Amino acid sequence: MTTTPRKFSIVCIPGDGIGVDITEAAVQVLGTLSDTFGTFTFQFTTLDWSSKNYRQRGYYAPEGGVEGLKKYDAIYFGAVGWPDVPDHISLWQMILPIRTTLNQYANVRPTRILPGTVSPLSACAADPSALDWVIVRENSEGEYSGHGGTTPSSAHAAHTVATEVSIFTRVGIARIVRFAFETALRRPRRTLTMVTKSNAQRHGMVLWDTVFYEVAREYDGRVAYDKMLVDAMTVRMVTRPQSLDTIVATNLHADILSDLAAALSGSIGIAPSSNLDPSRTYPSMFEPIHGSAPDIAGQGIANPIGAFWSAAEMVRWLAGASDGEGLGAESMVHAADCLMQAIANVTEQGVKTRDLGGKSGTKEVTDAAKKRNAGAA
Amino acid sequence: MTTTPRKFSIVCIPGDGIGVDITEAAVQVLGTLSDTFGTFTFQFTTLDWSSKNYRQRGYYAPEGGVEGLKKYDAIYFGAVGWPDVPDHISLWQMILPIRTTLNQYANVRPTRILPGTVSPLSACAADPSALDWVIVRENSEGEYSGHGGTTPSSAHAAHTVATEVSIFTRVGIARIVRFAFETALRRPRRTLTMVTKSNAQRHGMVLWDTVFYEVAREYDGRVAYDKMLVDAMTVRMVTRPQSLDTIVATNLHADILSDLAAALSGSIGIAPSSNLDPSRTYPSMFEPIHGSAPDIAGQGIANPIGAFWSAAEMVRWLAGASDGEGLGAESMVHAADCLMQAIANVTEQGVKTRDLGGKSGTKEVTDAAKKRNAGAA
Ligand SMILES: CC(C)[C@H](C(=O)O)[C@@H](O)C(=O)O
Ligand SMILES: CC(C)[C@H](C(=O)O)[C@@H](O)C(=O)O
Repeated sequence: MTTTPRKFSIVCIPGDGIGVDITEAAVQVLGTLSDTFGTFTFQFTTLDWSSKNYRQRGYYAPEGGVEGLKKYDAIYFGAVGWPDVPDHISLWQMILPIRTTLNQYANVRPTRILPGTVSPLSACAADPSALDWVIVRENSEGEYSGHGGTTPSSAHAAHTVATEVSIFTRVGIARIVRFAFETALRRPRRTLTMVTKSNAQRHGMVLWDTVFYEVAREYDGRVAYDKMLVDAMTVRMVTRPQSLDTIVATNLHADILSDLAAALSGSIGIAPSSNLDPSRTYPSMFEPIHGSAPDIAGQGIANPIGAFWSAAEMVRWLAGASDGEGLGAESMVHAADCLMQAIANVTEQGVKTRDLGGKSGTKEVTDAAKKRNAGAA
Repeated sequence: MTTTPRKFSIVCIPGDGIGVDITEAAVQVLGTLSDTFGTFTFQFTTLDWSSKNYRQRGYYAPEGGVEGLKKYDAIYFGAVGWPDVPDHISLWQMILPIRTTLNQYANVRPTRILPGTVSPLSACAADPSALDWVIVRENSEGEYSGHGGTTPSSAHAAHTVATEVSIFTRVGIARIVRFAFETALRRPRRTLTMVTKSNAQRHGMVLWDTVFYEVAREYDGRVAYDKMLVDAMTVRMVTRPQSLDTIVATNLHADILSDLAAALSGSIGIAPSSNLDPSRTYPSMFEPIHGSAPDIAGQGIANPIGAFWSAAEMVRWLAGASDGEGLGAESMVHAADCLMQAIANVTEQGVKTRDLGGKSGTKEVTDAAKKRNAGAA
């Protein structure tokens, strides 16, 4: 049986620093994967939205640029941030507006320990299966609303005061909680832990708790769930990792917990992140959780594993696109599994960058992954 | 030479759950310590501000109760919180108003690995000296301002929105940053790491960064300092603990990081916390950082080490009270050191509660510490 391959247009935004290195590596790996399977192809477009351009032209994305992303099937994002642009400018010009404009309210961050890599926790070094989590992060509101201000605006008066306003909506909370329960339903242990700081923060955080328990009723008997305070949650992650499975938290809390999770799994360099619009109205965005790492940029030593894992998540997500039924979708899910298997083989055989205790460069790891992909299908 | 001992009036608020067990243990240990040294005495007053009373009488502290604490020399606090009172009510009725009313803007949280205890991090299990931190927490404003609200107030409408408003003042930031630099100056490595999330939060967090660098200039050449984002900070704590020394962060960030720090040091049961009014206008408050632990309350198995360490910090703080000069102060600092030594001896010899992997109960650990105190001076 021959069918025409499914075609996807992917827009790449490599951004800054090692974002460029790892995006290139991911594009190569995705190319081998689609060649091998033959049931899908990617057409890549690259946008040079970087800090360098910001300095030259005064903007990251041009006027209407973020809106323009809506025509693609998915966005592949590297990293943004460079020492000569204040971080709050670079982020508010690019990554944060993309997440909110494109309704990517669900940020999914799986964490587990890859074969051949070692957790800094003794318990997980002895038993890597003890750490297997998916963090579901609210990605559109909360502490990242951007609201607030500084008065007097100079910030230099002795009596200056500044605020950060976190905004939580019932709609926003209910939809991410429901998404998290659905995620938990598809995991073998069917367990969801909800995190807030509703003891000290008595408005938005209390609303979060309230809405969580309302939605939870729909899943009674199907998903086991409990509630943690964010501070105590870090203790549980470190001391009882095997007690956790799916986790749902606010934008800021999940940002912190997912970095900690990545570190506990061995390196922030391996961790993926999917910014999803679950309604599939707009394209979703896939990015490793690490940053632009100016200190190692351009040296060919960045770990591309987080980028590959993000690419695998993209393939899996695209499998479910509206044209995807039957064999086409199955084959892409299979391709995503094969890419994950390739990653695991590569780390298992010690082809690892320095952050994982290895000696290989980005290219070696990429070539090894491509080779395994080519042998897959 | 005989001098009359310095007298201090200490008000104890045991609160709920294991707060009661460990406060009793701390009072006993402080008693042995003052008996042994003879240069200072404590007069204890105990206030029954608990969740039980809240349920019976409708309040934790009676009208004017928090103001009434001003007449004591120090406050010793156990823990507050019980399942049948929502946490945001118990905390806002007691612990949070005490911290702010009494101007306790500096919350100091030292962390290190006690002899005979084991860090969950392999690197620190091999070299316990790799983890030796003091977290300085802003304790009066920021994310704990309590401001914000819910509209419509029922919280049940489909369009309900709730806010949490973090308030940062130049005065509040400058004083805690200065306090942190002074703390770092007294530490052997003289290094300070400042934590914010000023890439995503662009108002109050940016003010924090700005004020930090202004104050930092006063310490140039005397203290080495750097800046971290809170998410990346968790990675650094786990992967490069030896690179950190003194840490300063906002109310919420430091709350999270100090729980993580305690867990990495072996158990949240050993971690102390000093809520200081550095101006000494009002009494300061000393409390272990663990909570009321309803699951193990009243069973005689709570770890009293965090309570003893908090008591040692109290003795050290009181040594510097306005009447304290020369021998009186020196003797109390020596007493605080001896109590810390007693704690270390006890854990080293394996007299440990279950959370530290031991088999002893609260009473055994307490008796062992008392015995070592008695032999001190
Ligand atoms: C780059 C930054 C906006 C970001 C965040 O805080 O969301 C990053 O830390 C992440 O986790 O994706
Ligand atoms: C009990 C609660 C108010 C508290 C806090 O969040 O400050 C606790 O977690 C702490 O760290 O002292």
